[in-house]
Amino acid sequence: MAKISALSGFPEHLPEQRLVEQHVIDVFRQVAELHGFVGIETRAVEPMEQLLRKGEIDKEVYVLRRLHAEEDEAAEADAARQLGLHFDLTVPLARYVLENQNALAFPFRRYQIQKVWRGERPQEGRYREFYQADLDIVGQDVLPSHQEAEVAMVMAEILALLPLPGFTIHANNRKLSEGFFRSIGFADHEPVLRTIDKLPKIGPEATAQLLVQEAGATEEQARACLEFATIRTSDSSFASRVRELGGSGELLEEGIEELTAVLEKVSESVPGVMLADLSIARGLDYYTGTVFETFVTGHESLGSICSGGRYDRLASDNRHTYPGVGLSIGLSRLVSRLLSADLARPSRSVPTCVLVSVASEETRGRSEAVARALRGRGIPTEVSPTSAKLGKQIKHADRRGIPFVWFPATAPDGADGHEEDGAGDAVRDIRSGEQVAADATSWEPPTADRGVEVRPSAP
Amino acid sequence: MAKISALSGFPEHLPEQRLVEQHVIDVFRQVAELHGFVGIETRAVEPMEQLLRKGEIDKEVYVLRRLHAEEDEAAEADAARQLGLHFDLTVPLARYVLENQNALAFPFRRYQIQKVWRGERPQEGRYREFYQADLDIVGQDVLPSHQEAEVAMVMAEILALLPLPGFTIHANNRKLSEGFFRSIGFADHEPVLRTIDKLPKIGPEATAQLLVQEAGATEEQARACLEFATIRTSDSSFASRVRELGGSGELLEEGIEELTAVLEKVSESVPGVMLADLSIARGLDYYTGTVFETFVTGHESLGSICSGGRYDRLASDNRHTYPGVGLSIGLSRLVSRLLSADLARPSRSVPTCVLVSVASEETRGRSEAVARALRGRGIPTEVSPTSAKLGKQIKHADRRGIPFVWFPATAPDGADGHEEDGAGDAVRDIRSGEQVAADATSWEPPTADRGVEVRPSAP
Repeated sequence: MAKISALSGFPEHLPEQRLVEQHVIDVFRQVAELHGFVGIETRAVEPMEQLLRKGEIDKEVYVLRRLHAEEDEAAEADAARQLGLHFDLTVPLARYVLENQNALAFPFRRYQIQKVWRGERPQEGRYREFYQADLDIVGQDVLPSHQEAEVAMVMAEILALLPLPGFTIHANNRKLSEGFFRSIGFADHEPVLRTIDKLPKIGPEATAQLLVQEAGATEEQARACLEFATIRTSDSSFASRVRELGGSGELLEEGIEELTAVLEKVSESVPGVMLADLSIARGLDYYTGTVFETFVTGHESLGSICSGGRYDRLASDNRHTYPGVGLSIGLSRLVSRLLSADLARPSRSVPTCVLVSVASEETRGRSEAVARALRGRGIPTEVSPTSAKLGKQIKHADRRGIPFVWFPATAPDGADGHEEDGAGDAVRDIRSGEQVAADATSWEPPTADRGVEVRPSAP
Repeated sequence: MAKISALSGFPEHLPEQRLVEQHVIDVFRQVAELHGFVGIETRAVEPMEQLLRKGEIDKEVYVLRRLHAEEDEAAEADAARQLGLHFDLTVPLARYVLENQNALAFPFRRYQIQKVWRGERPQEGRYREFYQADLDIVGQDVLPSHQEAEVAMVMAEILALLPLPGFTIHANNRKLSEGFFRSIGFADHEPVLRTIDKLPKIGPEATAQLLVQEAGATEEQARACLEFATIRTSDSSFASRVRELGGSGELLEEGIEELTAVLEKVSESVPGVMLADLSIARGLDYYTGTVFETFVTGHESLGSICSGGRYDRLASDNRHTYPGVGLSIGLSRLVSRLLSADLARPSRSVPTCVLVSVASEETRGRSEAVARALRGRGIPTEVSPTSAKLGKQIKHADRRGIPFVWFPATAPDGADGHEEDGAGDAVRDIRSGEQVAADATSWEPPTADRGVEVRPSAP
């Protein structure tokens, strides 16, 4: 047997940890479907030519090859037709929309929860294989800006149901930033945006210097940009402050209107989680409207756990352009923090609510019948794998985290664990030791014990 | 934009098809958890040395390489440490059990539903990327044989809830086969087993010839083997027929007892789906007890859609051996047949139950409020993306497959679609055209319309 070892960058969970991850996935799915988003999955691979269109991250791609590719497949080995593992769910979405445009109804509302792969050097919170959970609305040629507020609202509802100590969604708008930079005299806003993006890392002084050196700003412009980037408001008061700093013009006003709408709509649904934060730039050039980043209260060092925005050109062909707005949770990174900081715990480590004990192998059938009756009423139940002494069977339940042990009335020898009169079945809560007479056709566990619940850990 | 095309062997589903796949996954998970199986996921990659331990299928493995692996990673490129995509969920399970043996409680009951990859030539029903859904019980050093009956019972309950026209689980037992072949005079049972495995493909005459030529059988032994392999019974009567053919001995009787127990236990839970079928051999050498194959009624040409069995040596190290019993559904192949033969359909193509119409952009807030009230009571709802004419909004709901359109009482102009008195909200079932006055805080859709249901198609 080869030596077994964990692979750096490829996290795996123990069963009780997986229950937390599954809970996060279930909440995401449930809320997304409540809002009419349909779940899709795309294949794990894309042709390299698709994956390499965004030049920046090509080095992170895992390339596939068949171990014994036959020679007549040499053509397939041609670099452009090689297959790589997808590194996000946006490139596949764009391809899926184009490929199925005649079969989809637009605006297309989809969620997608799948693993993605990046050949990065593993480090804390950086994995080579991890789950992303995406929510996007894609229009055909048009996508009204109220959809930007909508994805933010749905995501806020998802995050509000997760066992987080708190979170804040920070939003900005590209039109607002571009409009501001233009109206204070920059001809080209992109270098300014890229420099502002570095503010949290390098601080205001270095950012001001870079604005002068690399974006051609005057001292005064640099100061205005820095002041602009420090604006954070939970209501629409950001607008007057932007105008006071010299912001004006049609594009700016459009951005203000859109950002205000996002703030208002999210607040109506989940109050107190949304901020206008004009420092949010997001590196990628393809965003064109609202942009989002999300931080967990007390865990800001984790970075943004949910980011995205509006892109006018997710995909296009000769006939149509597909604008989209989407948000993506870095689900594995979030779950990893929930676990490592002990923010959430499952109420038990297995789905099983009841272990039915077995007095002897001859009476296993009776125990099976009890289990069948309980399962028939939706109570997760298993039968003891052995007919060892009852004390051992109870210990087995305890070790597996099963809260109840059932004693069928089949042991004529008055074995340990039975009611003294031996008349009927009994069930014991092994956490409290409390034991009661019970009938498998009517007994109910406390609601909280029926299934596994994932709860915030006590502070 | 690069040309978009489907990749052969990498199936993808449209949203309404994905709903069928998701339904199959949900049923599997629900029944498995009801029986106390916990869900785990393993990483998609394993070191090649792990994957190549089963020599036969090495050519099916996809090997990974980072597009720009740095030079100091040359060591990593050493063949044994290369990573490949897993081709099943059994090799990862064995590794997971060894790696986490101190943290797991045995017998370990786990289910696992993940994609696997095989670099096979794509053909009908053979994919390069596909879902497997596995159910295993793994013991530490010991695993009582009643666990073999248990996994079969759980799988029968899963299959009984899927929209299949019918199915039969065929079971045999390696001890029974080996015991029989030995007791009629074969010293080595493996060549016989391998030859019998070919019976469905090559027919009885060719099988008899091969038994003589390759397994060293006499004519009489060959005839006995063929008669043995034609035994199919739904009760324990297979036992007397095996004994009549000359079968005897301890190993044979043990096999008979175990196979009888499997038949009985599954029949108690799901009557009429289990057969003792002594032709079932399963190619792989590592099975040591019960073996299973499953066929869909009327779709036998699809091959076995759910196979597995008992293996005494799933994994082992210096301290422990881990015997297991498991069954695996070829989920993608099954779903692909459900779809292509139109065996099952979702009741609609999106989760949305209600589309709330928008009379004008000024009153969008009122429509949002209706949607919030409906969602608050668990009714999947979306708001019309546009405030186009109501006829267009109804057409949008129809195209998306949404059954109900809601008309908030906000249109003072008596717009099309409102109750004549315009006093309150109204909701229309756009399938029947029936429209009723409704209140978002109390209206309930028919139960069958609340969520998407996947149902067997009408015959």
